[in-house]
Amino acid sequence: MSLLLNCDLGESFGNWTMGMDAAVMPHIDQANIACGFHAGDPLIMQHTLALAKTHGVAVGAHPAYPDLVGFGRRSMNISKAELKAMISYQLSALEGMAASQGLTVEYLKPHGAMYNDMMAKTENRLAIMEAIAEHHRPVKLMLQATPQWQSHQDEAQKIGIECLFEAFADRCYDDDGKLLARSKPGAVHDKETMLAQVIQLAKKGTITTVSGHTLELQADTLCVHGDNAEGVAAIASIREAIS
Amino acid sequence: MSLLLNCDLGESFGNWTMGMDAAVMPHIDQANIACGFHAGDPLIMQHTLALAKTHGVAVGAHPAYPDLVGFGRRSMNISKAELKAMISYQLSALEGMAASQGLTVEYLKPHGAMYNDMMAKTENRLAIMEAIAEHHRPVKLMLQATPQWQSHQDEAQKIGIECLFEAFADRCYDDDGKLLARSKPGAVHDKETMLAQVIQLAKKGTITTVSGHTLELQADTLCVHGDNAEGVAAIASIREAIS
Amino acid sequence: MSLLLNCDLGESFGNWTMGMDAAVMPHIDQANIACGFHAGDPLIMQHTLALAKTHGVAVGAHPAYPDLVGFGRRSMNISKAELKAMISYQLSALEGMAASQGLTVEYLKPHGAMYNDMMAKTENRLAIMEAIAEHHRPVKLMLQATPQWQSHQDEAQKIGIECLFEAFADRCYDDDGKLLARSKPGAVHDKETMLAQVIQLAKKGTITTVSGHTLELQADTLCVHGDNAEGVAAIASIREAIS
Amino acid sequence: MSLLLNCDLGESFGNWTMGMDAAVMPHIDQANIACGFHAGDPLIMQHTLALAKTHGVAVGAHPAYPDLVGFGRRSMNISKAELKAMISYQLSALEGMAASQGLTVEYLKPHGAMYNDMMAKTENRLAIMEAIAEHHRPVKLMLQATPQWQSHQDEAQKIGIECLFEAFADRCYDDDGKLLARSKPGAVHDKETMLAQVIQLAKKGTITTVSGHTLELQADTLCVHGDNAEGVAAIASIREAIS
Repeated sequence: MSLLLNCDLGESFGNWTMGMDAAVMPHIDQANIACGFHAGDPLIMQHTLALAKTHGVAVGAHPAYPDLVGFGRRSMNISKAELKAMISYQLSALEGMAASQGLTVEYLKPHGAMYNDMMAKTENRLAIMEAIAEHHRPVKLMLQATPQWQSHQDEAQKIGIECLFEAFADRCYDDDGKLLARSKPGAVHDKETMLAQVIQLAKKGTITTVSGHTLELQADTLCVHGDNAEGVAAIASIREAIS
Repeated sequence: MSLLLNCDLGESFGNWTMGMDAAVMPHIDQANIACGFHAGDPLIMQHTLALAKTHGVAVGAHPAYPDLVGFGRRSMNISKAELKAMISYQLSALEGMAASQGLTVEYLKPHGAMYNDMMAKTENRLAIMEAIAEHHRPVKLMLQATPQWQSHQDEAQKIGIECLFEAFADRCYDDDGKLLARSKPGAVHDKETMLAQVIQLAKKGTITTVSGHTLELQADTLCVHGDNAEGVAAIASIREAIS
Repeated sequence: MSLLLNCDLGESFGNWTMGMDAAVMPHIDQANIACGFHAGDPLIMQHTLALAKTHGVAVGAHPAYPDLVGFGRRSMNISKAELKAMISYQLSALEGMAASQGLTVEYLKPHGAMYNDMMAKTENRLAIMEAIAEHHRPVKLMLQATPQWQSHQDEAQKIGIECLFEAFADRCYDDDGKLLARSKPGAVHDKETMLAQVIQLAKKGTITTVSGHTLELQADTLCVHGDNAEGVAAIASIREAIS
Repeated sequence: MSLLLNCDLGESFGNWTMGMDAAVMPHIDQANIACGFHAGDPLIMQHTLALAKTHGVAVGAHPAYPDLVGFGRRSMNISKAELKAMISYQLSALEGMAASQGLTVEYLKPHGAMYNDMMAKTENRLAIMEAIAEHHRPVKLMLQATPQWQSHQDEAQKIGIECLFEAFADRCYDDDGKLLARSKPGAVHDKETMLAQVIQLAKKGTITTVSGHTLELQADTLCVHGDNAEGVAAIASIREAIS
């Protein structure tokens, strides 16, 4: 069993606190660190990097659309050149700050609407891949594990980058391998079902869909959430389950 | 004569244009590139870097206080940790984007109020020096050439960084080696006086102050301005005068 | 002939200048004033209001999505509640500043992507209409004159607000009454064709489409652009043509 | 006893929550509502206004320097015209939104560094008073109750506005009537001392300073803080003590 755990961190901003970063960090393998466009500010980025270093957690850039008030969750109709440039800017900002603490940014995971648009639109996905490929050193792209993972990996290889595929612990999948919309019943698992899904994924590389089918899912890492005490406890349980 | 020419560039923002960057770049040696906090956006930063590359111009980070509407010209009362972190963020952002074009950020020159505060307050200057010293690779600090240059250089050496000192071509100096306030008569030289000042500085390492005294000025580089056609023509004349 | 002329003004921001507001203002009837979300800052808003007052020009709020770097031209996927609240905020900000100069905000015209989304999506249009209807005093909504104007007016009446319909002077219309995409040949009229279109619209209430058909267009006002000297000259010509 | 209670509210921003507004509102008389420059966004402003309306609480504008990441707590060196314009913008934005809910903005209390600068610098205080005086309808200015209150009131009367003076419940005063710096021992009262100070102020119009002297303090309202459960409980106790 070799599933890693990744979590969005460093999402406070100025005087506003979000997430239980200090409690989450000991349990995870990969910290997706906000880069200032949807959350995070330079001081918070430094603190989050230091926390990751203390716990030996790998760091990844978590760039977003420039939308603080919308927390990067609102899709924006931007040009390919803009998208690539804002990826490059945020990745670079985190990278230099990480390097100054002796850390290396290993991967990039788009946030919120930028992530959703990446999964939904080929042109957005390719733009993000190109931005990473044009970066001066290798950085992996983290995207969602779906039945289309092979074609996404082919796109990446052609462009010259590596992928990391992530699955979700607490979300129910439909038969197409998509996340069931949150509005639908059963979309979010209770703790027991979540742990069962995690163990099945880690042991067999499959998940059970909403209709009871078994679906293969090629996942390198598992996305977990540490917004509150309950979430942190769930992360600890998952950690234990897959260790 | 070994005076370099440096100019603030990349100060457009989104749809707003500022500066005649394409006309200025062929004449200068060092481009101080805005990093998004007072001007510049990721796309403009990329274009400015590409323009510098085309003309073989060295690139420097031009960070500022986070104040778009005030163009970084309003002093802000920030903590040392905040100042260091915002320096690190902006420097890193430009550095990674530069590296992706095969360029190296050689130096950092604070912008506007951050620059003025650096020259006026020891604690601000030391904070900036520390931020640069803690960066993962060597970057020089550009500050104003004054009669206090030696003590500034001593501060820098102690902290472990190198300095670049800049003089101003078109500004009259007072007897203390400070720039005469713009509100005072004779504060800004006409073209002829400017060229005379530049030639004197390049040949003899001195300037003539407002009261006619001769003052030594240890300058590595000369700050020029390319906001309009007249400014660009002046830069071309200076270039010719010191070549 | 009773066509009014409206123009987007106050689109400078901080140190960046855009538009020739002082040259345009004497020729127009309605100033659409940016409210700080895509352009404009409090000081610029005050100056633009004062300029409108000097020339007896009616003032309208020109709100936008919160997107300075994209100049409000990038569609954002926002909730109805967010859209209504940002309309109310921007309208109110301008209104109070206008009232303090003895001026009344008579209408509201969404900017850029917010305008395009209003014309394209019924739910966005209704949200904007509701926001205006819930405002504490009557404000008209300016939207594009199209063959669907009657249904738009019906929507507005139901919600309890009044409409102003605007046509474009220099843009070619297709047979459906939409603006021909800028990418297509003939999309933007030369000066002569523009004046002919304006005169036809003012005298007969019709325009000639790209394929030569005659189309009725119910227009109260004509949108003109004063970004540069050529634009200002065109506005003066239009003013003369319809006076 | 006629002391009112005022509290800073609406200081959440987008996805970030701050303050226990719903718990505080039932206990206070005056809500100082953030206007978007240091905290608050249009949606949060609407919600806070609605909450104030439900509880019959008077609303005041709580404008700040444009500094989200610094929460308006960093002094900025701005011009008088800028300061007046940003006061006018923020006051107007809240006012129109309030009016659309049938509420009237009764007063304005600057936030954070803008408040401190107002108390420390006559030119800032006069600029703020002028901005309010030039507003199209009467709004009071809330400032700190100090031994200089009479001269502040004289300034206000001359300019043509009314003042509200506020005292602090939980802060120890020095013999000059200033707040003891937070860094000094005894700067923040425990609950018992706080209640004693509140009762003394309400009954006798005096406070006991750090050195035991009795000082008259002309206070209309008492500033309370509802950031956490403890703060809310303290507000309830104060409410009870002065009712």
